[in-house]
Amino acid sequence: MQKIQIMDLKVVIIGAGNLATCLSLELKKHQYNILQVYSRSKKSACTLAEVLECSWTNDLNKVESNADLYILSVSDRAYDVILPQLNFGDALVIHTSGSMPMQILTSYSQRIGVFYPLQTFTKGRAVDFTVIPICIEASNRADLNVLRSIAEKISSSVYEITTVQRKRLHLAAVFCSNFVNHCYALAFEIAKEQQVEFDLLKPLIRETAAKIETLLPIEAQTGPAVRYDENVMNRQKEMLTDHPLWKELYERMSKSIFELQTKK
Amino acid sequence: MQKIQIMDLKVVIIGAGNLATCLSLELKKHQYNILQVYSRSKKSACTLAEVLECSWTNDLNKVESNADLYILSVSDRAYDVILPQLNFGDALVIHTSGSMPMQILTSYSQRIGVFYPLQTFTKGRAVDFTVIPICIEASNRADLNVLRSIAEKISSSVYEITTVQRKRLHLAAVFCSNFVNHCYALAFEIAKEQQVEFDLLKPLIRETAAKIETLLPIEAQTGPAVRYDENVMNRQKEMLTDHPLWKELYERMSKSIFELQTKK
Repeated sequence: MQKIQIMDLKVVIIGAGNLATCLSLELKKHQYNILQVYSRSKKSACTLAEVLECSWTNDLNKVESNADLYILSVSDRAYDVILPQLNFGDALVIHTSGSMPMQILTSYSQRIGVFYPLQTFTKGRAVDFTVIPICIEASNRADLNVLRSIAEKISSSVYEITTVQRKRLHLAAVFCSNFVNHCYALAFEIAKEQQVEFDLLKPLIRETAAKIETLLPIEAQTGPAVRYDENVMNRQKEMLTDHPLWKELYERMSKSIFELQTKK
Repeated sequence: MQKIQIMDLKVVIIGAGNLATCLSLELKKHQYNILQVYSRSKKSACTLAEVLECSWTNDLNKVESNADLYILSVSDRAYDVILPQLNFGDALVIHTSGSMPMQILTSYSQRIGVFYPLQTFTKGRAVDFTVIPICIEASNRADLNVLRSIAEKISSSVYEITTVQRKRLHLAAVFCSNFVNHCYALAFEIAKEQQVEFDLLKPLIRETAAKIETLLPIEAQTGPAVRYDENVMNRQKEMLTDHPLWKELYERMSKSIFELQTKK
């Protein structure tokens, strides 16, 4: 009974970015009833609505007001602008942000929640939702159960966590995903400057990620900074003379590696 | 004929660290004739020699002088101390360092080279050598061929590169392996402070590494720094108040992500 009700929820998606796109496609795949997509950008709204086979708008005044569930997935600074312009009635309103408190929704609906899939999303790249941890939070038990049902439909890894823990997790995610990817990007640039193929680094990247499946990150640490080998580090920093910011990063990273190793 | 000669080479391993251990075990696996291991540490020398079924010493004066190939795999600052104390006769002498020029060996032998496997090695963790790029360099064509034969025996990915390129590659490797692993370690610490399980972050870590198999790192970049979302970034930095160095890293990383994105 509960299941049928949940599948019948009329859903409106607010946002058409990476996360909004991947999540709404996944919901569609599981037969959820998506009514409409809103995006400030006509093109993004239209593109996503086409795949979802639903209507779209880029006008906040034309967002459907008879939905049961509003999923807000916009950049964190857009919430303040968007929320006061919407009318949710008595629908359940959730956001998907790692770093925003659930309480930003308090003034706009009695029934609020958070649905945070802990993953890096890029439009056009399919991800396997079944392994993605989905972190949920809601203002009441019944809505938490609704979110749990939706989450369990798409993932086998669902966690009820607090705003404080979610913010932590999001910060940790910035380190182990966004910053990690930037390290890949800098390696790419550094190799390119001497006509070295980035592909040579891929087995190393794979093994570095694979190692922490069985070792703690601190046990897996290697490289000159572990033993604070200043000869190596100084020679390496010399190669970064033309990139003062990368050189600073090199210094701080090495210092931080050494500090953490000596603390362990 | 060449092959038989190469398999008959009498090999001495100088060093018993992570790389020396993994490489010598791989050579042993391919039936190379390892005579002896030297390490300053009796325990390390002894442990490795036992698996290699060869002799060991922790006395530089007792290193075998009748070998055909000496593989030096010690920390970069140890070369200056060790090299003058060894007598290589007319053997081929190679090192395995990413950041040392081949020329550090010039004064000690006529036949010198470099054998640099581009991977992160940890004792006790088996790695699949067949996919590891091995970067070789030698002072003459015949010895380069010797190194190529050995490299091709254990890996399907062998590259002849110059000292300048190898140093670059090593610097790039520090970014995309050592620094990446440190980002994992910081994520671990950050999550732990709020009793959040590091395991929740593993699917994200896997996907972050998997993305760059098909996307360029700069295309794969996500997170608040891409759009320089100061609201999110300031709230995240607040959580790092007790860790000034991590906070600095957060700032520099975010700045560098944004710079690279705007440059593209």
